[in-house]
Amino acid sequence: MIPESAQTSDSITDYLKARRLLFEQELVQQLEPSRSGLERAMAYTLLLPSKRIRPLFCLEVCQSLLGRSEEAMPAAMALEFVHSYSLIHDDLPAMDDDELRRGQPTNHRVFGEARAILAGDALLTKAFEILAMCGQLADGLRVSLIKTLSSAAGDQGMVLGQDMDLDAKLKDIRELHLKKTGELLAASFVMGAISAGASQRMLEDFREIGLSLGLVFQIWDDVLDVEGGSQIGKPLGSDEKNQKRTFVRDMGLEAAKLEARKILNETILKLRSLELKFENRLEEMAYYILERRH
Amino acid sequence: MIPESAQTSDSITDYLKARRLLFEQELVQQLEPSRSGLERAMAYTLLLPSKRIRPLFCLEVCQSLLGRSEEAMPAAMALEFVHSYSLIHDDLPAMDDDELRRGQPTNHRVFGEARAILAGDALLTKAFEILAMCGQLADGLRVSLIKTLSSAAGDQGMVLGQDMDLDAKLKDIRELHLKKTGELLAASFVMGAISAGASQRMLEDFREIGLSLGLVFQIWDDVLDVEGGSQIGKPLGSDEKNQKRTFVRDMGLEAAKLEARKILNETILKLRSLELKFENRLEEMAYYILERRH
Repeated sequence: MIPESAQTSDSITDYLKARRLLFEQELVQQLEPSRSGLERAMAYTLLLPSKRIRPLFCLEVCQSLLGRSEEAMPAAMALEFVHSYSLIHDDLPAMDDDELRRGQPTNHRVFGEARAILAGDALLTKAFEILAMCGQLADGLRVSLIKTLSSAAGDQGMVLGQDMDLDAKLKDIRELHLKKTGELLAASFVMGAISAGASQRMLEDFREIGLSLGLVFQIWDDVLDVEGGSQIGKPLGSDEKNQKRTFVRDMGLEAAKLEARKILNETILKLRSLELKFENRLEEMAYYILERRH
Repeated sequence: MIPESAQTSDSITDYLKARRLLFEQELVQQLEPSRSGLERAMAYTLLLPSKRIRPLFCLEVCQSLLGRSEEAMPAAMALEFVHSYSLIHDDLPAMDDDELRRGQPTNHRVFGEARAILAGDALLTKAFEILAMCGQLADGLRVSLIKTLSSAAGDQGMVLGQDMDLDAKLKDIRELHLKKTGELLAASFVMGAISAGASQRMLEDFREIGLSLGLVFQIWDDVLDVEGGSQIGKPLGSDEKNQKRTFVRDMGLEAAKLEARKILNETILKLRSLELKFENRLEEMAYYILERRH
């Protein structure tokens, strides 16, 4: 599916692996060297094997706008802290009650429910501490980043999506996933652009791209839950087990796949319309979402 | 116990009541008018009858340094959002498993455990959104406020205190309460001072005062848990039920009371040494902590 124009000497897989390692080196620096039990629980989920999709999009968007990737590093780290907290709380017995995450026992299975709740709370809090303190950013940029992340993650964004997910009778599954997955992915794009000092217009364009990719991401998750081969590490058919409404259940498997590809193609067109001057691999990364099985 | 010098025409009770109403008017503005289930759960704990100790100290410190109280309002609100989230998560079945808070059913008893976890998450997130967006503050002040709140509330502060509280064999109960209660109360003082543009030296002095008062606050909570008459709304002897280590259990009731009074008096001396020029009622408010039973 990767178009000719986006081909470079490195394969996208090698490129992302190198970027991931660089990011994870920075991530480890944020953790206390002599860890308390609480900090071990935070580090456990933060350092699970992961594609690091949100931080890598954030860093790549910053570079695509001629920013240096270190300028987007606080944003990239904060996004991963928020994502990790959401995984821990989402897996809790009172929520999805999952035993495995990325092939490993979930946080509360290892550290107990109380400490898992607290580890999530601490990761969320630390995301904002990182945005306020890390790196060399102007105060105005820090405030914009914190506005973007808190709006995306809070009661009008990701947490609202999680809450909608509790309601089995929910009408609008697309709205649910725009909140639950789309808002934080959109924030990844927007925060990368903010870090590079982008215009308001550019922030809005990147927000739209991130929201659409979040939807693709979630539809494809549902597809993988049925077809398997996923690296998300949940047991096959776990959505079925939890009686969750999914795109596949709503639309059927083939229609869901078609829908994901259609939204992805529209998003790529939108991305091309931005006419980003600096060489970047955003387009390949967007396609890569649908290739996560490999 | 109130010293002559601090007497004014209004009783401290009337003064605090008026300030509390003013603050609560602002607080309600932060809540969505047509509330989702999630927002109802957030509002439920946020709007429980409360002394609003943290926000009122924050506003009073700002005024004592010649700031206008509206400048400290974002800080005051963010503190109350963080405090409310901590109550919800602290009461959860996996944590203290409390059924009553301030005489009312706890959040998870009303809204269920999943939504209570999410309501806590959303309140915490919104605290930072408020600091990034509300009022008319310079970006530098916003960043300082967010640094202070995130450090006080996170894995080196309040959440660490909560985590220490899980460990029954804990050696240092004073350290626990400095983290669990002291850090957020200290942040209330420091954030009020930041909002008024205070010097670094003044911030450090106020931090010390807040930490000490947090300790007094917690010792007195333990005393009230034994003696009753408390308005914290927990059933009498709830610490005993939970087999919690308390100051009263460690020191005995009379020694705990003496210790609280001793720290309080030292704190008042420290407060006087600041020679705050603007008329303020911080001293009376500090004494008021030990009068909560009335």
